[in-house]
Formats: sequence, structure tokens, C-alpha cells
Amino acid sequence: MDPSSGEPPLRVYDPSGPYTCASFTPDLSAGLPAARPWLAAHAGLEPYQGRGVKPEDNGFAEGERLVPPCPAERGLYRAAGAQPVTQLEFARAGIITEEMIYVAHRENLCRERALDVAKERIADGESFGAAIPEFITPEFVREEVARGRHPELEPVVIGRNFLVKVNANIGNSAVTSSVADEVEKMVWAIRWGADTVMDLSTGRNIHNIRDWIIRNASVPIGTVPIYQALEKVGGDALKLDWEVFKDTLIEQAEQGVDYFTIHAGVRLAYVPLTANRVTGIVSRGGSIMARWCLSKHKESFLYERFDEICDIMRKYDVSFSLGDGLRPGCNADANDAAQFAELETLGELTKIAWDKGCQVMIEGPGHVPMHKIKANMDKQLKVCGEAPFYTLGPLVTDIAPGYDHITSGIGAAMIGWFGTSMLCYVTPKEHLGLPDRDDVKTGVITYRIAAHAADLAKGHPAARERDDAMSRARFDFRWEDQFEIGLDPDTAREFHDATLPKEAHKVAHFCSMCGPKFCSMQITRDLREEAKEIERQKGMAEKSAEFLEKGAEIYVRE
Amino acid sequence: MDPSSGEPPLRVYDPSGPYTCASFTPDLSAGLPAARPWLAAHAGLEPYQGRGVKPEDNGFAEGERLVPPCPAERGLYRAAGAQPVTQLEFARAGIITEEMIYVAHRENLCRERALDVAKERIADGESFGAAIPEFITPEFVREEVARGRHPELEPVVIGRNFLVKVNANIGNSAVTSSVADEVEKMVWAIRWGADTVMDLSTGRNIHNIRDWIIRNASVPIGTVPIYQALEKVGGDALKLDWEVFKDTLIEQAEQGVDYFTIHAGVRLAYVPLTANRVTGIVSRGGSIMARWCLSKHKESFLYERFDEICDIMRKYDVSFSLGDGLRPGCNADANDAAQFAELETLGELTKIAWDKGCQVMIEGPGHVPMHKIKANMDKQLKVCGEAPFYTLGPLVTDIAPGYDHITSGIGAAMIGWFGTSMLCYVTPKEHLGLPDRDDVKTGVITYRIAAHAADLAKGHPAARERDDAMSRARFDFRWEDQFEIGLDPDTAREFHDATLPKEAHKVAHFCSMCGPKFCSMQITRDLREEAKEIERQKGMAEKSAEFLEKGAEIYVRE
Repeated sequence: MDPSSGEPPLRVYDPSGPYTCASFTPDLSAGLPAARPWLAAHAGLEPYQGRGVKPEDNGFAEGERLVPPCPAERGLYRAAGAQPVTQLEFARAGIITEEMIYVAHRENLCRERALDVAKERIADGESFGAAIPEFITPEFVREEVARGRHPELEPVVIGRNFLVKVNANIGNSAVTSSVADEVEKMVWAIRWGADTVMDLSTGRNIHNIRDWIIRNASVPIGTVPIYQALEKVGGDALKLDWEVFKDTLIEQAEQGVDYFTIHAGVRLAYVPLTANRVTGIVSRGGSIMARWCLSKHKESFLYERFDEICDIMRKYDVSFSLGDGLRPGCNADANDAAQFAELETLGELTKIAWDKGCQVMIEGPGHVPMHKIKANMDKQLKVCGEAPFYTLGPLVTDIAPGYDHITSGIGAAMIGWFGTSMLCYVTPKEHLGLPDRDDVKTGVITYRIAAHAADLAKGHPAARERDDAMSRARFDFRWEDQFEIGLDPDTAREFHDATLPKEAHKVAHFCSMCGPKFCSMQITRDLREEAKEIERQKGMAEKSAEFLEKGAEIYVRE
Repeated sequence: MDPSSGEPPLRVYDPSGPYTCASFTPDLSAGLPAARPWLAAHAGLEPYQGRGVKPEDNGFAEGERLVPPCPAERGLYRAAGAQPVTQLEFARAGIITEEMIYVAHRENLCRERALDVAKERIADGESFGAAIPEFITPEFVREEVARGRHPELEPVVIGRNFLVKVNANIGNSAVTSSVADEVEKMVWAIRWGADTVMDLSTGRNIHNIRDWIIRNASVPIGTVPIYQALEKVGGDALKLDWEVFKDTLIEQAEQGVDYFTIHAGVRLAYVPLTANRVTGIVSRGGSIMARWCLSKHKESFLYERFDEICDIMRKYDVSFSLGDGLRPGCNADANDAAQFAELETLGELTKIAWDKGCQVMIEGPGHVPMHKIKANMDKQLKVCGEAPFYTLGPLVTDIAPGYDHITSGIGAAMIGWFGTSMLCYVTPKEHLGLPDRDDVKTGVITYRIAAHAADLAKGHPAARERDDAMSRARFDFRWEDQFEIGLDPDTAREFHDATLPKEAHKVAHFCSMCGPKFCSMQITRDLREEAKEIERQKGMAEKSAEFLEKGAEIYVRE
């Protein structure tokens, strides 16, 4: 803050890890320092020898076509037995973990500064039944985790009583992208505020590309293991089976993936429900499993083996993101029977996972017009026992390819307000191509807007601190502070300088929009001075009352 | 549409006038052809000799510094007496005008194609008390106008039972911009879908710049006359008086402005209510009038002379846009006493204007967090007799300078759904600088998204036709149709080509996001074929029921 403001520094939530520390020099080959050094001393964990990388993990890529693995070293640990391992298990056992302490501190932001207005702000918001606390203690985090509602993917807590989080998807496809591009997109995503990143890569080298991403990420990384499983069977969905899927789960868990999207809710009986949809099944994982079920006329192996999946997830402390394989791909298909049938199954699976000690998020749509968004949230809370909802958008209209960060940002802000815990971003390239670095940035910032707007509307006690700091900076013409308080200082500065580039204008008490004569902020400042003077001289309050009385009669007609 | 689709052409709402006709060659000096040739034969109108341009109209600019007026010729007409002149007066007299016929046709879009599902779609939407018809007849338009709720600014109808409209602001300031830039921005705004344009210019040459804009616009043009009045008194608010304001009203009415923002609701007694605001008064017009009132300790001359203003507005058939001079400039100031006191006064003034035969819109905020948006709409409907609401955004957070088209697009979609009739756009440059051509385009398209999302959510019978056409084109991989159906074909095509540039890929049944193996759309198509085959062979319905029964028991636990 400019010293003229007399304001203390503003604390903002920043998932970018060491990358934004001035003293940090990135070395992708070394990876980031371990985020949770205490794990090595963890009683419930045992070190073990990993499965090792197999040729099929990288699509049998060889020689020059093989991306080398990331050489960063680290130890491997997994659950040794029945002792608590997942945050859910610790929470139930009444144990406050380092992770809980960390996120409690992290979530509070400027809450200690807002304590005197916290009650008022919470009352002023509309949280639709969430229980937002005035201050977040480690014990509050533990209680929330114990209630099974909040997967705690170190170092981020996800749940509707916490700040709304944002996920960014990256990943190459068989058609395009390279490893350097993907790592750069990951770093760019967290630089601008992604709380988690999903690597949705397909094609060759999928294992080794993921290696570079995980070793260099300061945020939890999610994947969709069925993509790699499909690669291992040459792209033929009918060759998928439990063995190859299980092997892929273990491979990725060992590699350090934090959460898996598992489309276990796509059941055989639901497939016919999609027959009359305008756009059918639009989830990649969903369509793969639908094809498998229908062609073989068998129930999904993901559904039938869900117990075993849970055991693996617990052992490696990987969280579930139960995939919405039957989400609508257009407004016309929103909230239909297929979508809601799957959601009910996801609720059933949530309870199983919780029984097994695993943490769960539920993925949600997709494409939903505004008036049908709340029904999604309400149904999810009801059938999934308030497990955190993790939605893609939703896009509130289908007619704007090239602008789907905006069509979906509208829906994301609304569903975030209604209670969604994490918003999966959509970039301007959605429906058209793979995002580049700039698209990732635009998507992340759009979703940070949506998440923050949701926090504000829910009545998060500290959320408005940042808005108010910005507003005061505007009123004071502190241009540098305006740039720095905003989500994207670079763009704000560039836009300002496009019309008023001189340094002198950064301290000017006007801007290019109105010019000095029409500056309403300046007029208001003058007006306040005048008002003070007038009040002293004449007693303004009486004058006001007098004029209100007189004036009110001028235009009253019968 | 690609012939393979078997679909008829899609009708879209297009305010760009002749500019998008292949046969039209723009000639800015000649202006556009008259939009309403029937006015010359109008019984209630008389031709007259205009006031002529005075040196002060252009800030005494001379010689090379004087922008020449637009040489386009046209006749001047004004009300001759008590015979109906405004659309409100015609509507009350039971007369269906050419304008009403025109907009009825225009509003229907593909409604005739959607007639069989119109009831269902209206019932499926949530219109918050609007009365959206299955089909729009000229008589329906007349009734709506007669109820005083819908200013009819030829050729666009504005009201919550019609399509949500979008306004784009342009205008230079004393600091920057030129006439060519402003005309280009206007054309660019209507090219991308602005339904009206406001010229907010200040500085010298204000009259002649407006001349070029009005003569070349296919949409209604609005202005804020107090800006020019202030220029005429050298920028000193205290020198403003009724005479200079009246002269400006007549000057601009003669010039052909379609609607005026008049800040007649900023009353002396309300000024002290803004004293404790975080950002005070942020409306230029509002702060000018507040300063005038407070310094002179007098009631606003706009409020006291409102009867006379109405007489002028009627005579020249100019519509009111009652300005919200006390709108909040940040989230912290939303829905406060000052804002709502002014809104109540605007309601009082609306009734006076209606009595005088004038059409009225009410301007609204501004900066409002999501949970406080609906209260604005509800109060406006109540206190302003359901006169059309015309809102700026609102911005749902203050922390994203450089992205305020998005922070405000979220609020705009919501308030449009709740019942706002026209949305005033915000560009990415808001709070930072004046928008250039690209910013205007981004702002307009963002607001077209918001307006359309609102139409969809309200249950407009034909709105979804465009979404569904897009969705079918997606499912069929008709890439060219996807580009053309969208709001911005150029950007969509460019984004697609960034990863898959070859022409062959425009007919490919996959895209760069997933590649051919993971294409869910293609899998769904295959799946449908398989499903048909299976259904033939085995009776799929029974199979489904059987599996649902079996499967439902696998994981039920007590």
C-alpha cells in the first residue's frame, strides 16, 4: 500500500507456492521442495519400493520420442495398516494435523482484522445454509473434515464453509502440445490463482509428462486415470478391464497424484437415458465407460469394484473426485434423468468411500441455464451428504464459442454462491481447441472472479477486505495500489498506460475516462470538504430535513 | 446451415442495420437512409426551422480545431400540438404504429418455429412475474407500451416481456479520442450487437462529433445533456442553470438524440446521505448536480423544472432515461440509503413523465454483490411502476480491474434474468481508461451473452433455438455452422485454426481438445448406432430394468 493510505498490507490467498518468492530460482529438474516434510516421520506410513515405470505407461514411446522422466528425487510412503492415514481418518480420531493448522491459517486471510464486523458480514450475506465461521481455527477444520464434507488435499481445504477454490485443467492430446508447454501452463495457472490443477493429458509420454508436472507443482494435482488406462489398451474401450485400471491407479498414486476422477456413476442402466439427448454424452470418461457397458452388456467395473478402488485410494491417501460422466453437454440436456440418476449413484458411492476413510468430491455440470443451476446444488447437497461439489462452469448459454470462460464464469459465480466448493475453470478455447498459456491465465482469472464473487455473496467475513481496499485506493487515486490489489496487476497497468502512459499520471487525481473536469471522485472529495464547511456554518442536518419536507410536496399529484 | 443438417436458416436479432448488408456501401458524409420515412406524413408533426449550431455547442472550437458537422441532410419535425406524437400516446389512443408492427416482427425471431413448445418453454423458465407471450403481435406491443412500461425507441422495444437489450457507451473525453475513433466505435458496437449506443463525449466539438454519430447510427442514440451544459459554462458546475440546460436539451433533441439521461433524482437532501460512503458519488452527472445543490443550498433545478423538461421531451419525442446519480461505486456502498432514496424519487418522476405522454427508463447500479442484486430489481419494479430498468452491470466484485466486463457480466446476466430490460455494457478498460474498438467489441459480446442467458432463464420461447442449433452443429461436427451460429464467428474460427488450421479439419469428426480416440461426441454417435442394433436384438429396455434392479443392491449397506 502507498504510505499515504495509512493502511496495513492486504493479505491475499496465493497458491503459487515458491514461484512468487523473490529468493526462489526455479529448477524444473530438481522439482519443488517437499511441501509436507513431516510425512517421513508419520507413524501410519511406511516407505516402500515403487512399481517402477513400465513401457506401456508412456505408450511404448522410445528413443527420441520418449520424454525423459523428471529426475527430482523423493521418498515413497503409503499406509502401513489401520492407523489413521487420510485427513478424514485423523479428523475422526480427533487429531489436529499439521495440514489442518496450515489451512486454518491460510483460510483466515484478513479475518483477524475483520473480527469486529464478522458477525455483521455473515448476517449480511446469503450462504444458503452453509455455516461460515467468524474465524477459522484448526479445530473447526478438523470438525469439518470429520463430517466428511471436506477433502483436505494439502495444502488446500475444500468445502462450502471455506473460500471457494478454483481448478485449472491442462494436458496435451494426441494431436497437439508438448511437455514444456504443459509444465509452463501449470506454473502459469498457479501463478494466477489456480488452487488445484488437473492433468488431462492423453497420448504417448503421459507418465513422464505427469512426472514433470507433479514434481514442480505447489498445488494438488488431479488426473482421470481411465484416460491412461485406455492408452494402455491401444484406445479400444472394449479392451479395458479391472486389471489395467487398477495398475494405472497404483502407478499414478505412486507418482504422487492427489486426486482421481473416477466415473463410477456411469451405470449400464443409465446409458439408454442419454439416447434422446441433443449432444449425448460429452464427458470423455463417461463416454468411454458408457461404450464399455453397452457393448459388453455389463455393469461398469468401476462401479462393481468400487470397494477395491477405495482401498487403493486410502492406502496412498488419494482423494476421490467422483466424475460426472453423464453431465449435460448443452442447455437442452440440463438437469435430465441421466444426469440426476448418476448424481444419486455418486451419493451412494460417497458413503462407501467415507466408510473406507477416503475423502470425496463430487463433480458437477456442465451446461445449465441460470434458472436450473440451483436445483443442481440443492440435489447434490441432499443426495451426496454435503460432500464438496466441484463443478465445471456451468455454461449458461451455448452460443458463444470463443467466450466460454464468460458463459461459464456467470454460472460458476452463481453455483459457487449456492454452495459449490471448487469451480473447474473453462478457457476461451473451450469447444474450439486446447488452451495456450494466455488462455489458461484468462480462464484462471475469470474463475478467481467467480469464486471471489461467491465468497462475497455468501458473507465470508474477510472477502470484502480486498474489495474495500481497492475502493479506497480508487477514491484516493492511488493508481499503483489499484494495480497491485487487483487480480492481474500487469493487465491493469497496461490498460491504464494505453491512454495515460506518463508516470505523472499515476499520481494524477483524475484519469482518461472523464478527464479532470468531470472527475466524479474528485468532485465528491471537494464536496466532502464543502459539506464539512457548510455543516459548521449552518447546521446541515436541519437544512436537509427542511428541504426534504418542502421538496416532497412539489410533485405530489392526485 | 450446412445442407447436411437439413435445418432451415436461423434467424438472429441484429441491430447492425445496413452495415451488414452486402449491397450497402457506407458513406459517412451521406449518413444512413432515414429509418422511419413515414414520419414526414405524420399528422401530429410539423416541420420547423432548427435552432442552428452556436459556437458554444462545440466549445468555441474554431478553424482547424473545429470538427466539421456531418453534411448528411434531413428534415426536422416536432409535435405540432396535442395530437399523439410519442409511442406512449399512440398506444394509449389504441393506435398500432408502424414502429409497433416492426418491433413485433423483430422480437419474434424463430418464435413461429417454436410455437408448439412455447407454452412448455415459458413454464420451464423463471420470469419473476414478467408476462412473456408465446408470440408477439403488434397489439401486444401496443398494450405493453400503453401500460407505460416500455419506451419504444424505434426500431427497438425495451421491456421485460421482450428480449433483453444491450447498450454500449462510447465517447471521447477532454483527454483523449477523436471523431473518427468514435464513429468507428459506434459502428463496431452495433456490428457486434449493441441495441442502443450512448455518446458520453465531453470536451470541444461535442456537437459535431455527435452529428456524425447520429447520422450514421442504425440504433437509438442516447446522451447525458448535463455534460454538454457543463462544457458551455466552462466546466464550473456552479454556473449551471436552467437556461443553459434547456438550450442544450433543445439543441440535442433537434439533432436527433433518441433518449436523454437526466439526473433529476439527485436532490439536495440526499447529498449528505453519501457522506460516509467508501467511494462517494461516482456518477459524473450525479456529482455535478450534488455539487450544484450543496454549494448553492438549493434543490436541483432538474427536479424543480421536471414538468418543463417533460414538455420538451414530448415535443421532440425523446425518451427519458432517468439517471442514477447516486448509484454505488463499490460493493461496500451497494443498496444504501442514498441509492434507494434516489430510486424512490425516480419513481415519482416516472409518473409525472407518463402523465405528460413521455416514455421512461430507469437507470440502475453499478457495483452490487450477487446477494444484493435482486433487491434492486424488486424495489425498482415496485417504486417505478414497472418502467423498464436499465442497469450498468452490476459489477459483483471490485477486485479485477482489466476484467470488469466479466465482473459486471455476471451481475448483468442475473439482473437481466430478474427483469432488467436493457443492460449497459462495461468494457475491459473500465476504471482504467477509455475503450478502444476491440474493447467495445469485447464489452458488447460479453453483454450479448448476459442478455441471452437472461432470455433463456426467463423462458423466452425462441431464445433456445440458437443454443439448440449450436448444440446440434457440435454433435454433427459442422464446424462452419458452429462458427456462424456463435456470437463472434471470427474469433471462434481463429481459435479453432490455432490448433487445427487445415481445411480438412473443418470437416473432421474430432477436434484438438480430445483428438480422435477420446472424442466423446463420436463415441456417443457410435454408441447410438450400437444401441439401435442392441435394441433390435435383445430388447434393451428390459435389460436396463434388470440391471437397475440388480445393481441397486450391490452397494446398499445398513
